[in-house]
Amino acid sequence: MEHFREWKHIFKLDPNKEISDDALEKICESGTDAVMIGGTDGVTEEKVVNLMARVRRYSVSCVLEISDMDAVAPGFDLYFIPSVLNSKRKKWLVDAHVEAVKKYGPLINWDEIVMEGYCILNPESKAAALTEAAADLSLDDLLAYAQVAEKMFHFPVFYLEYSGTYGDPETVAKVKSALSDTVLFYGGGIRTPEQAEAMARHADCIVVGNSLYTDLENALKTVKAAKGAK
Amino acid sequence: MEHFREWKHIFKLDPNKEISDDALEKICESGTDAVMIGGTDGVTEEKVVNLMARVRRYSVSCVLEISDMDAVAPGFDLYFIPSVLNSKRKKWLVDAHVEAVKKYGPLINWDEIVMEGYCILNPESKAAALTEAAADLSLDDLLAYAQVAEKMFHFPVFYLEYSGTYGDPETVAKVKSALSDTVLFYGGGIRTPEQAEAMARHADCIVVGNSLYTDLENALKTVKAAKGAK
Repeated sequence: MEHFREWKHIFKLDPNKEISDDALEKICESGTDAVMIGGTDGVTEEKVVNLMARVRRYSVSCVLEISDMDAVAPGFDLYFIPSVLNSKRKKWLVDAHVEAVKKYGPLINWDEIVMEGYCILNPESKAAALTEAAADLSLDDLLAYAQVAEKMFHFPVFYLEYSGTYGDPETVAKVKSALSDTVLFYGGGIRTPEQAEAMARHADCIVVGNSLYTDLENALKTVKAAKGAK
Repeated sequence: MEHFREWKHIFKLDPNKEISDDALEKICESGTDAVMIGGTDGVTEEKVVNLMARVRRYSVSCVLEISDMDAVAPGFDLYFIPSVLNSKRKKWLVDAHVEAVKKYGPLINWDEIVMEGYCILNPESKAAALTEAAADLSLDDLLAYAQVAEKMFHFPVFYLEYSGTYGDPETVAKVKSALSDTVLFYGGGIRTPEQAEAMARHADCIVVGNSLYTDLENALKTVKAAKGAK
């Protein structure tokens, strides 16, 4: 597996959504750098394990993005843990993390943990509602969050989550320029290879999720587009 | 200046309290590793600058612990920035930091910034009241906070702040054993060389503040006690 810092493209699968075996094969064999399992609601340990087992038939890297500490299972290559910087509730920033460490501390292999400083930017999204995110951020806000994520919290990943809507590539470019060591993940609204390429030009890695369920053929084309972006 | 990771002893001076020139000389010439300027209330830029100017007559390292972004001045060796992990308000964890970066971002030399993951453990203290800290933490809570500070937030310092009361050395020992890279600062209630030695046996660095104002001679003896602790 390539180190996540080198990744250009991730497919994100929602354990709460159906995906056929045929579609899953195409996703796993697409050339994407990793399949990330993660969702906002209806995520249970059983659904997570079932989906992981299906992905594990392929050689692609399989990682979990933890949104609920009761839906965690061993066997993933890496565990991505969001800390939602623009949530109004401390729970999503640190408290849930402290609870998880209290519960699972001795079982955690810290080498498999990747912290993500999240900013959720679509106020209409389920993720924004759940975390009570102050999603209406100015560019100055975003640049400050990016610096805090990198320089103060030393998060290895800063994640711009537009969650269902397509963001502004210029904004993504400016956020990228505010980061030096921390890698930038972009997620949200990528449905076409052109959209993928436009974002991959600035973000280190793009995450394609929803469109796998609505337009698989175009979603699959985002892999090549992201990897060819200049 | 030795790297802060090597420090064993800090004297903390409150800009809102009076200190005579004679006392200040003894403090600065005591052999302490650093004089840290910081307080909870009544801290103004003018008071900070005046006190720094007086400390700067000596060769001791002089650092600022920022509690209010309007009371920051250039000229310190390092700037310590608390992130209060057990505050109930997100402001003290991250929001004030984002505001500060928005305001001062381009002026910040990140090499001079040292992040402190704070736990405030005296519920009766001004610091606990100000930050609305959930100060009544169990040992399990504390160990989880320490791991989150080190492994998730990658803070270089974890700071146990008993703020005016003397903590339990056994608790400090257990917290220390939960940390590997992050250094442990202990502050609170150290009035005698014996107390200093007991804490310095476990914490990487002890911070002595209040007793400078109430029993200077004993406070000065804590330097040697901390440095000789085994």
